[in-house]
Amino acid sequence: MLIVQVHIRVKPEFVEAFQAATIDNASNSVQEPGVARFDFLSHLDDPARFTLIEVYRNEAAVAAHKETAHYARWRDAVGEMMAEPRWSVKLRNVFPEDHGW
Amino acid sequence: MLIVQVHIRVKPEFVEAFQAATIDNASNSVQEPGVARFDFLSHLDDPARFTLIEVYRNEAAVAAHKETAHYARWRDAVGEMMAEPRWSVKLRNVFPEDHGW
Repeated sequence: MLIVQVHIRVKPEFVEAFQAATIDNASNSVQEPGVARFDFLSHLDDPARFTLIEVYRNEAAVAAHKETAHYARWRDAVGEMMAEPRWSVKLRNVFPEDHGW
Repeated sequence: MLIVQVHIRVKPEFVEAFQAATIDNASNSVQEPGVARFDFLSHLDDPARFTLIEVYRNEAAVAAHKETAHYARWRDAVGEMMAEPRWSVKLRNVFPEDHGW
């Protein structure tokens, strides 16, 4: 698995709109064959901070996700909502192993 | 759900020992009734960095985890392995909703 964790902080006035746009993206993304999970999390200590944990079955699945209509819709919608540039890290699973996702 | 994300950096000489101790902890933790997931991830750009994503069904499950023998074993084993104090953030799930975990 290839896991992309995205760290996001939005402008306070966009918290609700960002959640709506990202629920749309996540609920469509989990339908992609190469996506094992697409978790959208909110930080308890700061409602303007969010984390995406995107679990792909391989590198090709990451590229395929970027070609979807729902990703393009999300990217275009949330651009103005960012309080700072979002940033990501790439991870791999140690536990569970691949068959556990 | 209550999600605890733990950020960890270990001393380079302890990478393998830390992985072994944490696989033991994670594989036992997912057997706890209040634990939905216990993912142990390694950072691609730095093999000494790790992330734990612990997904609990409620606050009581967080407390129950801290009382287990496997948690105590992990905590005691990894103390000397830390390159810096580990730190955590608390999150909640926006997507999927609770029934999706």
